Amino acid sequence: MTMQKGSSLRLTHPPVIRAWAAAGGHRESQGPLSGGMDLLYEDNRLEQDSWEKAEAQLLEQTARACLEKADLKTDAVNLALAGDLQAQCTASGYAMRQLGIPFAGLYGACSTMAESLALGACLCSSGAGEHILAMTASHFCAAERQFRMPLNYGGMRTPTSQWTATAAGCVLLSPAGHGVHIPTVTFGRIQDMDVHDITNMGAAMAPAAADTLLRYFADTKTDPSAIDAVFTGDLGQVGSELLQELLLREGLELPAHEDCGCLLYGDDPEVGAGGSGCGCSAAVLGSYILPSLMKKEYRRVLFVATGALMSQATFLQKESIPGIAHLVELQAPE
Amino acid sequence: MTMQKGSSLRLTHPPVIRAWAAAGGHRESQGPLSGGMDLLYEDNRLEQDSWEKAEAQLLEQTARACLEKADLKTDAVNLALAGDLQAQCTASGYAMRQLGIPFAGLYGACSTMAESLALGACLCSSGAGEHILAMTASHFCAAERQFRMPLNYGGMRTPTSQWTATAAGCVLLSPAGHGVHIPTVTFGRIQDMDVHDITNMGAAMAPAAADTLLRYFADTKTDPSAIDAVFTGDLGQVGSELLQELLLREGLELPAHEDCGCLLYGDDPEVGAGGSGCGCSAAVLGSYILPSLMKKEYRRVLFVATGALMSQATFLQKESIPGIAHLVELQAPE
Repeated sequence: MTMQKGSSLRLTHPPVIRAWAAAGGHRESQGPLSGGMDLLYEDNRLEQDSWEKAEAQLLEQTARACLEKADLKTDAVNLALAGDLQAQCTASGYAMRQLGIPFAGLYGACSTMAESLALGACLCSSGAGEHILAMTASHFCAAERQFRMPLNYGGMRTPTSQWTATAAGCVLLSPAGHGVHIPTVTFGRIQDMDVHDITNMGAAMAPAAADTLLRYFADTKTDPSAIDAVFTGDLGQVGSELLQELLLREGLELPAHEDCGCLLYGDDPEVGAGGSGCGCSAAVLGSYILPSLMKKEYRRVLFVATGALMSQATFLQKESIPGIAHLVELQAPE
Repeated sequence: MTMQKGSSLRLTHPPVIRAWAAAGGHRESQGPLSGGMDLLYEDNRLEQDSWEKAEAQLLEQTARACLEKADLKTDAVNLALAGDLQAQCTASGYAMRQLGIPFAGLYGACSTMAESLALGACLCSSGAGEHILAMTASHFCAAERQFRMPLNYGGMRTPTSQWTATAAGCVLLSPAGHGVHIPTVTFGRIQDMDVHDITNMGAAMAPAAADTLLRYFADTKTDPSAIDAVFTGDLGQVGSELLQELLLREGLELPAHEDCGCLLYGDDPEVGAGGSGCGCSAAVLGSYILPSLMKKEYRRVLFVATGALMSQATFLQKESIPGIAHLVELQAPE
């Protein structure tokens, strides 16, 4: 592994994504990417008696679907890197209790899919495991109750607000083989532009995406035209426009920019500025980005998941919202 | 790096702990380990207007103290691995906002110091960074409010309950050099023996410590007599006795077992069964374990931090408490 000047990591032995699975709930099943998902749920309760348990169930089933596609048993997995939005990451904790795999818990809010993939890629590339899982989930109802209002309250949504996806994604990494490779990762630094509006996550996270992208291009001396597409997740419409603006100020024009929050629901008018939640970019990765790379519709893309690292307590204490974005470079099979 | 049969990782190039810092609040300053701490605070508010902000401040100052001891600037650090007990790990998030270092957030409850050290050691050993920070903090008042009752409520404490330390620890890892080395790590698997009592964390976590220790000894074929001491954190008195019992059933007698929760406060009768919180084992590591290794009072020890992965929501939903324990082997300098 080689440290680039700066803080991007070039993986000398790029690990491979051996299998993956994506799952979506009711609304996600009606979106444009449902055809690429492995698991679709008509009922967001998943037969559980709480939204929180439903989310743990969603994550567990997605991991099992991923392992099934790789024809691998849970006890062959060396390590799972997982996190979610629930306080104390309990969706991951309870899912991992059922799976019984060695487990390192992460918290990166909606950036968790890229964080787990970046850490997993570094570990896998260095020989720390033959089989490493990177996974995350989110649940609309569990997230609304925790960060904003319980659904029963019936609070109005603002146009800038994003819709936390009831969705999950799981990726199985191996040190070598056929498939999508991860040649480079860039870990994010927190950026905080003093945004206080918890119904405008896109604005809080866009500066973090800009910082990470600028560092990736500077560290690796990559010409932006060499990248087929940049997938941010989840800035939504508002955050995506801000990102373009921030990058243009620094002289960087993205070749093709898509946002997972905009892709997941298409033009569904009910979701506000787009999707969000850990599961959003994770499900878009599995239902759209990875399949497109396997079909060689893209050769080289950047997956840049963004997270807003506030809590209900820091919101009530009138703190601004820190944003973070982790980047994973994905390369189509030879 | 070599995967052992099982799931312990033998690090081919064991990274070194180049510097560290430990911090304690008011009660910790009166404990037997205060002499080994770098920062002591008479006032647990740390001049902040909330306990949550005080915890972020504690973590930030501990990280700065660690970097100062290594004579290193923040921009030389490649990655910080940090987590805490606050919902959405906001103590870490806000501390990292001030430090500006690339940051991967973790959640392992009170196991976070071992989790960050284990992940950091793997990354450092593989060349993912010249300078990697592993760090965590906890704050008694922020934790009580979140997991049990706000202090103002004046709830009675049970004898099995543990005292969340107002403390922090930070370790700087480098790929090579003089100091304490990390030759092996074992990531924990969740163990859940159906404990529901959130005032008895030791009982919930002891099975996880037992599982990880048994796997370490089986994977590495280490004779227990080769280990000078096993430091668990934080099982307290109740959990420590349970751990001994669980291990004896499996035929393993620990040579010398100490628990960070018991060490931090000595025989202070007010702390119940001992200390707990992410910062407890982190501060014991920095104020006692690492200094003892540097003085060669120990040659080879196991640091096994344990975490209870429940939340206030899962407690109210009557879920049992999943435990996890990550292990880091520490070796004195040659």
